[in-house]
Order: sequence, then C-alpha cells, then structure tokens
Amino acid sequence: MSNLLKQIYKSSLLLLTDFYQLTMACGYWEAGIHEREAVFYHSFRKAPFGGGYAICAGLGTLIDYLDSFHFTKEDIDYLAGLNDSRGNVLFGRKFLAYLSQLQFSCDVDAIEEGSVVFAQEPLVRVKGPLLQCQLLESILLNIINFQTLIATNAARLIQATRGEPVLEFGLRRAQGFDGALMASRAAYVGGCVASSNVLAGKLFGIPVRGTHAHSWVLCFNSELDAFRAYAKTFPDRCIFLVDTYNSLDGIKNAIKIAQELAPEGFRLAGIRLDSGDLAYLSKEARKLLDEADYKDAIIVGTNDLNPAVITSLKEQRAQITTWGVGTHLITAYEQPALEGVYKLSAIKTSQGQWEYKVKLSEQAIKISTPGILAVRRFYSESNGYAMADAIYDELQGISEACTLIDPLDPTRRCFISSGTPFRELLQPIFRKGELVYTRPSLQSSQEKTRNELSQFHETILRILNPHLYPVGLAENLYNLRLKLVLRAKGQL
Amino acid sequence: MSNLLKQIYKSSLLLLTDFYQLTMACGYWEAGIHEREAVFYHSFRKAPFGGGYAICAGLGTLIDYLDSFHFTKEDIDYLAGLNDSRGNVLFGRKFLAYLSQLQFSCDVDAIEEGSVVFAQEPLVRVKGPLLQCQLLESILLNIINFQTLIATNAARLIQATRGEPVLEFGLRRAQGFDGALMASRAAYVGGCVASSNVLAGKLFGIPVRGTHAHSWVLCFNSELDAFRAYAKTFPDRCIFLVDTYNSLDGIKNAIKIAQELAPEGFRLAGIRLDSGDLAYLSKEARKLLDEADYKDAIIVGTNDLNPAVITSLKEQRAQITTWGVGTHLITAYEQPALEGVYKLSAIKTSQGQWEYKVKLSEQAIKISTPGILAVRRFYSESNGYAMADAIYDELQGISEACTLIDPLDPTRRCFISSGTPFRELLQPIFRKGELVYTRPSLQSSQEKTRNELSQFHETILRILNPHLYPVGLAENLYNLRLKLVLRAKGQL
Repeated sequence: MSNLLKQIYKSSLLLLTDFYQLTMACGYWEAGIHEREAVFYHSFRKAPFGGGYAICAGLGTLIDYLDSFHFTKEDIDYLAGLNDSRGNVLFGRKFLAYLSQLQFSCDVDAIEEGSVVFAQEPLVRVKGPLLQCQLLESILLNIINFQTLIATNAARLIQATRGEPVLEFGLRRAQGFDGALMASRAAYVGGCVASSNVLAGKLFGIPVRGTHAHSWVLCFNSELDAFRAYAKTFPDRCIFLVDTYNSLDGIKNAIKIAQELAPEGFRLAGIRLDSGDLAYLSKEARKLLDEADYKDAIIVGTNDLNPAVITSLKEQRAQITTWGVGTHLITAYEQPALEGVYKLSAIKTSQGQWEYKVKLSEQAIKISTPGILAVRRFYSESNGYAMADAIYDELQGISEACTLIDPLDPTRRCFISSGTPFRELLQPIFRKGELVYTRPSLQSSQEKTRNELSQFHETILRILNPHLYPVGLAENLYNLRLKLVLRAKGQL
Repeated sequence: MSNLLKQIYKSSLLLLTDFYQLTMACGYWEAGIHEREAVFYHSFRKAPFGGGYAICAGLGTLIDYLDSFHFTKEDIDYLAGLNDSRGNVLFGRKFLAYLSQLQFSCDVDAIEEGSVVFAQEPLVRVKGPLLQCQLLESILLNIINFQTLIATNAARLIQATRGEPVLEFGLRRAQGFDGALMASRAAYVGGCVASSNVLAGKLFGIPVRGTHAHSWVLCFNSELDAFRAYAKTFPDRCIFLVDTYNSLDGIKNAIKIAQELAPEGFRLAGIRLDSGDLAYLSKEARKLLDEADYKDAIIVGTNDLNPAVITSLKEQRAQITTWGVGTHLITAYEQPALEGVYKLSAIKTSQGQWEYKVKLSEQAIKISTPGILAVRRFYSESNGYAMADAIYDELQGISEACTLIDPLDPTRRCFISSGTPFRELLQPIFRKGELVYTRPSLQSSQEKTRNELSQFHETILRILNPHLYPVGLAENLYNLRLKLVLRAKGQL
C-alpha cells in the first residue's frame, strides 16, 4: 500500500484523539494530579430520531481499542516534534517518557451491546487514574455514539418492516471506510440480517448479500441476455434487478429466463425493484411471479428507504418481502449524530476522599450527574415488562423500596416497592486494566437486541411519539445532585 | 493490537466493496467480456445543503487506494470460502486465480481537489477493462462522495463566518475512525484552518488545535486554580474555557490569571464560549478583554454551530473571532450523504467499436449520460468570472462556438461564442494503471479552493437559493443522449 493508507493502517490509534486531551494530560501530570482516581461516565442526552430508546452498541470495538492501549514510538516522536508559537517544544521529555510507558489500568463497566437504553443513563463508566480516564474521552465517544446510533436506526427500520428482513447496503454513501465498517457491525447488532460490505463479512462474520447493478444489464445486448448470463454464473443466488429499462418488462424477462433455464436446475431466488412506485410494482411483481408459480421468489425493495417510507409502503400493502436500505441506514440520515457526552462525576482528593462533581449549564439537560453511577432496571411482577430504570450512586446505594425522580422534571416520580425484581445493567468489563468480560459473538448481541426489545411494552418502543419510559435518579442521588448544583452556583 | 483492530488494520481494502461487484466481476469473467474496454464516470445529482456548488475532494485518498490495488492471499482465501445455499463454492478457482494476479491498468481522469464543481459533471472518469472499472465502484463512491460533501460543508461554513477562521472539532461525533480522519482532511481542503484530531495532524500535516474541557476545571478546587495550572503548563497557548460554572465570571477569572502571571511572561491567547447566549456573551467578553488591554485575545465560539446559527450570530454582531465546529461539520448534519453515482457510459463491442450506454429512469435526474465524458469551463472575457460548464463527449468533440443544453430542462440553453476562454477540468491521473499526476500538497488544495471560489460571482455561491450556474450538455451530446434514451424506450 502507498503513502497515506499505509500510514493510517499501521498507525496506533492513540493519536486518534482531540488535541486537548493531550494538553490536559500534560497539565494533570505537571500539576501532579494525573494519578488521582477519577470516575467518568458516557451517556446521551436524548434518544435519537424522535424515538424513546436506543440500542447500545460499540462495546466490542471499545474493548479492542483498550486492549491495545499504548503509545508507539512513532506517536511519541510526533508529539515531541510539536512546538508552541515561540518555537518551544510543547510536551516535555519527561512527560512523553511517562506517556510512552503508560499501561492501561482502569476499571471499565458498561451496558452490554444489544441492550435497550435510555437518555441520561451511564452506558460506559471508567474509573481509574485521571490522566487515563481523560485520554479515553474522544475515542470512546467516537465508537459508542456512532455504533449506538446505527444499531438504534437498524432496530427502528425493522420495527417499520414489522420484522421483515432488512439488508444493509450503505457502503457507497457511508462516511469513510469504517463509517461503513462500523455501521455494518452496528446494523447487524440492531437486527439487520446481512450486509453488502464484503470486508464487514470477513471481519465480523456478517452474512454478505447482493444482486447486480444496472451496469451489468447495460453490458449485454438485451436484458434477457444479461439475465441469462447472470443466471448461468450464479444459478442458486439469482436476484434480478429489473428496472434498468422498464420494471414490468424486467419482471417478465426474469420469469422468462427462470422458465428457460429450469431444465438446467436454475432456481429464481427473486427480483429487486430499485425505482418507480414500489407499492404498485411490488404488487404486480407478486402477481406475475405467483402466476408463474414462483411463489417463493422474494421481492427486494431498495431506493432511499427510511422508516417513514417503509411504514407508508406497509400501509399500502406493498408486496416487498426484503428491504435493502443504504444511505438512510448507514449515515443515520434522519439524525447523523448521537449527542453522547463523557463527563467527570467524581475524583479523589489528595486525602483520598471521593469528591463528587457536577458541570453546570443554563440548559437543564446539560447539567451532569455526580457520583459513581450505576443503573438498575425494575420489572413488573404481573406482566414481566421492564417498568423503570433507576440511576443511583454506588457509594450511597439504593434502598429496596425507593422513589425515582426525573432530573429534568422533578414532578415526574416513580415509586418502586420492596421486592420488585430488578437487574443491574452495568457489567464489569475491565478491572485494573485487565479484561474480565467474556465477549459474546456479534450474533448473540443481535439476539440480545431482539430479546431486550421484547421486554418493553410496544408503546415505549413506538417509532413516533412513544410513551415516556420512567428513568429517574434514586431520591438520595437526586438530593445530592441538587445540593451540589446549588452550592456550585453559590446559592447554598 | 487485539483481534478486530489488528484485522482491520492489516486488511487490504480490496474487499471493502459491495458483494455484487465481485459477483458481477465473476459473471463478466465467465461471459468472457471482463477485458472489454469500458468507461464509467462519477457525478452527483444535486448540490448538497440546498446550495448550488460543491468542492471536489478525496482524489488524494483515491490515488492511494488505486496505487495499492491488489488482492492479497487472505482476500482470496476469504472469497474461496464463500458458498452458495447448496454448499457449492461461489467463486471458482480459475476466477480467483485471475483476481489474485490482477493488476490495475485503467486510465483515470479527475477534477482536482479544491475545484468548484456542479451537479451532473463527471468528477472522476475511469476507462479500462470492464471488470476493473466495475470493481472500483463502491470504494470510489465511498471516498469521493464523503470528502466532497465535507469539503463543501467547510467552504459554506467559512462563507457564513465571512472568512473568519473555522476550526474542525468533530472527532467525538464522527461516523467511525476515518469518518473523522477523512472528514478532517476534506474540511482542511474546504478551508478549515485546523483540526482537533491529532492523528489527522500527523497523517495530513493539518495544524492541530485545542483548548481544555470542563473536566479540567472540575478537577481543581476553583476555576482560578484550574486556569492558573493550565497557564503554567502552556504559557503560550492558553485559551480558557470559561463556562464551566458561569461564563461572565469565567471571563473575569481568565483576565485575573492573565494579569497575575504577566510578570512570568504569560500571554493570554483567548477564551472559549461553549454554551449560553453566544451573541451577548461574546460582546461582554470583548468589552472585558479590551478594557483589560487584551485586545489581541481571540474569542472562540463553539456549541452546535452551523451555517444558519453562524449567519444569525454575525447579523447580531457577535464578537466571536474564531469558530469551532464539530458535529455539524464532520457529519454534514444538514445532509449527511452526497447522492453521487458511478455509471457506465460506454463499452466496446466485440468488434472494438465504442457503444454508448444510457440507464433509463422515470425520474429525469436519474437518467445517465452516454459517452467518454469531459468538462470544459468557459470564462467571461469582460470580468474573468466562470460563466458556464459544458459536458461533452471526447469522441464527438465540441465546437468552438457551441450551444449548451440543460438535460433536466432543455429550454435552458447557453450560447458560447467562438474564442471564449476556457479550461478543461478533467486532468489525467492514471494512464494504463501508472500514476501520471503530481499530487499537490493538502495545503495547496486548500489554496485552490480559495482561488476557485473567487472565480465565481457571489450570487452563484450564495448559501441559500443561489443563482443557477449554467451547466449543459454540448448540443451534439444532448441530441445523441436523447436518441439513445428514446431508442431504449422503443420510441425511435
């Protein structure tokens, strides 16, 4: 490989960070507080796409990153060459020596991939030396924000198709190489059955699928010739793209070739519609295919599909059986970024006491939550559905019977009675830098998504205007947070 | 590095493609037409963000890819292991042997990075063996679509700031690792002065910048202590983030520290506002800084900025001097994908004659243009501004005096008189697989953007509702296209 790609692909990813993480790291080191124990947590402020929930994803990628956390000589050399505007080196030799021998030693707790999660909840919690916690911010946000966004998008698309298979076809419109790769991964966690991306297939074991392009048809003298040649090459996988010239003629040509080659053992897998009125054309296609006794042939619909278009097609009883989604899935077109943040919530004093921290803001949604946070999910004894999530502080603890208070609307409260079944959402992933978590296969993360979604009432999962699922701070944490905010404002 | 990352980073990128490219390649090979000479071109259908133009970017990355084009043994092994649903191998050994010895041998012509381009124009043209042209589709679209989108986004942001510097701060909300890296690169081509992404700095030579986060302030007993510690570490680069508790107090604290440390040679570089009313706060900040005689201190504004917000802040005479843009820049939030396509436009018959190709569609905008396409830009002799672009077929040629016809509205025509100055936009990049192009530095691509934008009347570049720049097919090409479309529809 040449210049750029070779460089990217042999780089460590430790420099894939915001510059200020390194200047702060240097500052902590100079101030002598770089090894103070601190706690940071990742959460998002609002569920994406106007929905109520998200599907957690990206943990596997984050583990890969953390498991290979160290600065290479090349990284250090680059940093050593940076100057300030007076021409002095920016980072001193002693600090760089410290970085070069740095070993990851944090505790990481996280919610597993495929879990249903809500705004304000800590999805990942990092506890360890301040400098290390700080250095993780940018990459952790990059990984978890994007994959959670795409897994959620995939899950919503599958809700729109009412469970019919969705294929991810987005590589050509994705944002960069692993804007595609990571999205293929996350879309699979969210429930997509396959991807068109071959490298995603190779790396993640995702089934790969595809049909053919218009260019294939144009390369032959007629559509019949083109279909015949494709059928001969792939007698068992043929899904003909029928709209290069005229979709209805294309469907008839697909059937003609299927009948012509039947004696040779050819089996028509299906057709693909990529333009025009998908509702009308899919019904006509179904009729023609059924009349010719190809009742098993699938009808793949593609062409800028999104949840709204799919919902409308389902309402019109479109006869699409398999949905190929590209741009809207892979870029999360309706909302291309998840507003996830990573906030300091506690740090030990020089005397070794935990000091809880809040970041203020005029916008209530931007005020952080202090503590060593955890999340507990309660389940209804009568119907088994999840009924509320409590965010609490591990040191304060949470009582068996408790009141949960929504920090954005303290009049919204939820009362949990003693004995209500519950589950802790955060799982130990790293302890003192050692991986202690057994990673599930990507397929079992996909199964987890399906299983988790079944634990929520459909009104909570509704694509538009969902019922608000109760998520609150345990009352003791709520009171502590209020006190700290008022004190920081000088009002207490 | 562990599992996943190690695999990604040692993979060749040849499998970063849509599965159907490989099945079509196999089909072409079996049909014996894989080495027929063909021509494909990349173009986009509509300028992004409701504007009229785009800034071409990504060519450097594409060159890197093409320059290292070959299937590794590992790639071939993966493909050899793929089965159809009957358990038969999908790709035969002979075809895979062909792939494994494949050497890139196409001609590539492209418009240089930093050029102003318009919808329908070929940005990249690939001419060579059909199989190779086809295999490039997915990766070429992935690279050119995204980087062109981001470079355009950056250029528009800088129009909104009226030329004031824009910093790219988007890593944490980017779509994957090189959703960040490639966007940093493209944003720099589009005119951003710096990035927060350190790896982008290392790989592309982009200046890196940053301040500090709220967490820095929270780690100290007071904002004053935090600012003092940061100033001691970076006496020459200090831009204090002032809104952790209260922005006005934060500005005053920044000034206090600057005055306190002045005897030690400390110089306050500026402050950063990250929340609240940026118009009001920036004016107050300017007043306080000027009164304390820090007239050179810059005021960085950040917080979900986009062209509309920036335009509004400029109208309110906000005193922000430097604009930090994250999410909206790096994900192209207002339109996260460019609708770029890659279409076959000509292929040689078995007799070696060029046969021109069009792909039909009920949507006029989706009908392709046949030929071996080129683009010529004409300039006004009176004011030097670009006045029209002609898309023409190299074999047909274009006469000196010509009529250009908009294929989407044939009543829109433009008449070019003989002797009008012009420039060819497509440049030779590869000839028979050999790189023949001297790559400009990224910095000179940025200069090109600035220079190119100055060649267009401001009404063409307007952010909203721009004047429509004339782009048309040369009349002979227009007539040819019309004939081929009607013939394909059986109407001629």
